[in-house]
Amino acid sequence: MTLHGKHLIAGRITGDEAEGFRAWDPAEGAPLDPSFCEAGAADVAAAAEAAEAAFAAYAATEPAHRANFLERIASEIEDLGEALVERASRESGLAAGRIRGERGRTAYQLRLFAAAVREGSWVDARIERPVPERTPVPKPDLRRMNVPLGPVAVFGASNFPLAYSVAGGDTASALGAGCPVICKAHPAHPGTSEMVGRAILRAAEAEKMPDGVFSLVHGQGYEVGLGLVRHPLVQAVGFTGSLQGGRALFDAAAARPVPIPVYAEMGSVNPVFILPSALEKGPEALAEKLAGSILLGVGQFCTNPGLAFGVAGEAMETFARALSEHIRRGEPATMLHRGIRDRFCAGTDRLGAAQGVRRVAVAERAADPARTEAGGMLFRTDAQTFLANDMLAEEVFGPSSLVVVARDMAELEEVAHSLKGQLTASIHGDAEEIARHDGLVRALRRVAGRFIFNGFPTGVEVCSAMHHGGPYPATTDVRTGAVGDAALLRFVRPAAWQDFPSSLLPAELRDRNERGVRRLVDGAYSTEDVG
Amino acid sequence: MTLHGKHLIAGRITGDEAEGFRAWDPAEGAPLDPSFCEAGAADVAAAAEAAEAAFAAYAATEPAHRANFLERIASEIEDLGEALVERASRESGLAAGRIRGERGRTAYQLRLFAAAVREGSWVDARIERPVPERTPVPKPDLRRMNVPLGPVAVFGASNFPLAYSVAGGDTASALGAGCPVICKAHPAHPGTSEMVGRAILRAAEAEKMPDGVFSLVHGQGYEVGLGLVRHPLVQAVGFTGSLQGGRALFDAAAARPVPIPVYAEMGSVNPVFILPSALEKGPEALAEKLAGSILLGVGQFCTNPGLAFGVAGEAMETFARALSEHIRRGEPATMLHRGIRDRFCAGTDRLGAAQGVRRVAVAERAADPARTEAGGMLFRTDAQTFLANDMLAEEVFGPSSLVVVARDMAELEEVAHSLKGQLTASIHGDAEEIARHDGLVRALRRVAGRFIFNGFPTGVEVCSAMHHGGPYPATTDVRTGAVGDAALLRFVRPAAWQDFPSSLLPAELRDRNERGVRRLVDGAYSTEDVG
Repeated sequence: MTLHGKHLIAGRITGDEAEGFRAWDPAEGAPLDPSFCEAGAADVAAAAEAAEAAFAAYAATEPAHRANFLERIASEIEDLGEALVERASRESGLAAGRIRGERGRTAYQLRLFAAAVREGSWVDARIERPVPERTPVPKPDLRRMNVPLGPVAVFGASNFPLAYSVAGGDTASALGAGCPVICKAHPAHPGTSEMVGRAILRAAEAEKMPDGVFSLVHGQGYEVGLGLVRHPLVQAVGFTGSLQGGRALFDAAAARPVPIPVYAEMGSVNPVFILPSALEKGPEALAEKLAGSILLGVGQFCTNPGLAFGVAGEAMETFARALSEHIRRGEPATMLHRGIRDRFCAGTDRLGAAQGVRRVAVAERAADPARTEAGGMLFRTDAQTFLANDMLAEEVFGPSSLVVVARDMAELEEVAHSLKGQLTASIHGDAEEIARHDGLVRALRRVAGRFIFNGFPTGVEVCSAMHHGGPYPATTDVRTGAVGDAALLRFVRPAAWQDFPSSLLPAELRDRNERGVRRLVDGAYSTEDVG
Repeated sequence: MTLHGKHLIAGRITGDEAEGFRAWDPAEGAPLDPSFCEAGAADVAAAAEAAEAAFAAYAATEPAHRANFLERIASEIEDLGEALVERASRESGLAAGRIRGERGRTAYQLRLFAAAVREGSWVDARIERPVPERTPVPKPDLRRMNVPLGPVAVFGASNFPLAYSVAGGDTASALGAGCPVICKAHPAHPGTSEMVGRAILRAAEAEKMPDGVFSLVHGQGYEVGLGLVRHPLVQAVGFTGSLQGGRALFDAAAARPVPIPVYAEMGSVNPVFILPSALEKGPEALAEKLAGSILLGVGQFCTNPGLAFGVAGEAMETFARALSEHIRRGEPATMLHRGIRDRFCAGTDRLGAAQGVRRVAVAERAADPARTEAGGMLFRTDAQTFLANDMLAEEVFGPSSLVVVARDMAELEEVAHSLKGQLTASIHGDAEEIARHDGLVRALRRVAGRFIFNGFPTGVEVCSAMHHGGPYPATTDVRTGAVGDAALLRFVRPAAWQDFPSSLLPAELRDRNERGVRRLVDGAYSTEDVG
């Protein structure tokens, strides 16, 4: 496949290459062809208008038809074969094996949403039948279900060039819900984005979806993204990336004459609390596993554990020594792009220079800047220093972690209460000990979206019982998550029909339950027809 | 009961009467004793800190205990008897019968939320059991459910001094969800607010709920409310009132370092579309019913029909004449307070002065300003004038409506497309005719939260299949509604537990389903234990 470097707007290839930009191969330290177009206000408007024009027809498609579309996207992406793996690997510095795994996850997510949409009960249909004889006023016939919001803007993440990018969780859930998508490609992997975007368009054509159901625009700066969020036809936003970027989009959306929801998944330091009973059981094994979680994927996961807390003592020293040793021995590796490496270096420099913080381990083998490499780093401080300096609790994206040693359990609890919103919080210890420290557990429950027992935060299972989200600044919307089929609900709103004849109702609300969805009928769940 | 005019903060009566304000009897045109305190920043902080201090214990109460609390609030309010009816009637100008009906609705809502909380399935528990043998990585044990957000600020509405005020839908749903509530009393009915607030505190004491589970503060201006929304311990906001007030709170919440959700139910003009088949069937009967909906409660409902659209012709003229006649004959009545009457007069003056708009009916009997009265008013214009002047689509709170006559169905559809977000949209006609005008139907579906067939928007049934909400500016959050048990979901967030032993899980997620709630276990709903 030859990349054209242009926008894909309503099925048409458009854009002016004159003011383009190139992707960069972080491992080779060299630009990649071709040049990609920079979108302007006219491109954004054209994509939004096309999405709006497609909305009514797309929202009215049969659920099975939308499910086929999602499944077709999955197979079109798989059909891109090694060409996609190679381009994504070059643009991200991620190994081919990792890209293949992520491709599998991307296809799995698309098929998971397809299955939920095909089954159909996620629309939460509710029917209450009329009681004409009720006094003082008759009870009307009321029926309610979720309906799609309208065009959705999706911003891909650099650290998951497939699973949280052009055809990632946000796009899959918005398309599944019945919303057209306008994707702003991440400028670090525009070629990967174009390949996946073209796969989506092939799927749209094969499934005869309306033009405008999907558009892809390129751009390097914040302007294109802000323009998209401010466009009056855009009804919701999905974003995965930095706190700064997510907050800028949130602020722009809140300042609109008609504000819209922004689902931004941003920073998290994913604290790991290690109770004395866990340290006593085997500090070395714990240290080895934590080091693995810190170094996994060069630390470039939103669930990377950036803080580890324990109580002072001999076992904690053994643990800290073993952790340092693993970090020292870890191999430096190529980061996603230069900007991420620059921010990692600045963040770790800031940590190292902070009063009361010691850098206790650095990867032995020096990181090669020409290959955009970073190596693991470990810092250490005490709880009072941590409590006195907010900066120490901020995310440093990459393979770095700060060990905080508390004097006792009371101080550990105090630290837990000081934390900001997190995607995850992990706690290590035996059940009896944890049960004795209810205050600590409550503090962690308050800040995190997911609690992990004797485990580590990296590795996010995609299933109905997962929640990937959390209080701000982990996300801009604590009420939802980006992983699993509940993500569909981010792009819908409830609507009610009063006293409508069955023929004018959406299929899910008609007397005859032709789609066989689970419905709440007069207070009881049922898949039966309404008599 | 003697009113003390003070704040109720964490069960204590506090406040300085020096800078107080008085309620006003709109029917008598006279102030009402006593003087009420104006809350300052210290009062707001004390209430927020008390709510935060109560949160952990309150969130951990058994659902049945919280349900008892809500039911006890209902019976404490009922026990206030005629003293409450009298005070609420004097402060609002609403007739005693209407207040009694509203008291019934308030108690019904509290009991409905109590039943949902006691039953417990609303927490949406999901369990996926581990698959340790899965490759390449084992599947962990994952369990997820809704947990309460934290302290909630509630702003009462002036037009429902009981059902959408201190112990109204927002308070009931927040308390039911496990969130402490800080209520800002509406300054138009501070005495009613104090009586209901004290009833809530008696219920809290009887049920041994933690201090701080409920506080009530008084204030006349925006400052108290803004201070509450900006307080870092407040986690969500419920509001019913004007667009100006709701948007100010939304903006303050979005500008916080940690933004929080704002559920503001604001203005709506509730368009009624009358198709030719409905006019042909009986224009007089239709006009009589529409007039009844316009004049109901002096037009002081958020679902008041402020716009009626039809197609030019003889039947439309018959309809318009009959509607005018009913409006002329309607009795003026006392509005809620002087501010509302002033705004009604200004709004109808603006409509009357607009180019191309004619005032076609005014209540025959003149409204008495000394009794804060307003009478019905009807205006008329054509579709092109309506389309050219945004002001004509704005809400005028009170018994006023604008009839817009379109040349043909195409123009009617054009008008429908021009509308902003609405709580409701009504359509009159026969099913065959409506089915032929899919564009009109789609336009209405896009703007409204509830669609009504051959009916009128006033009268909001409280049940699971109701949706009372809609796109901005009807509300600030299109994804939720303030009526019915789905309102509980506004004050929770999902949380997941990974690999936790049953003993450390919330009751709803343990292997043994001791609360008997409906759970999604490995993809299938069940109330059984997990083996």
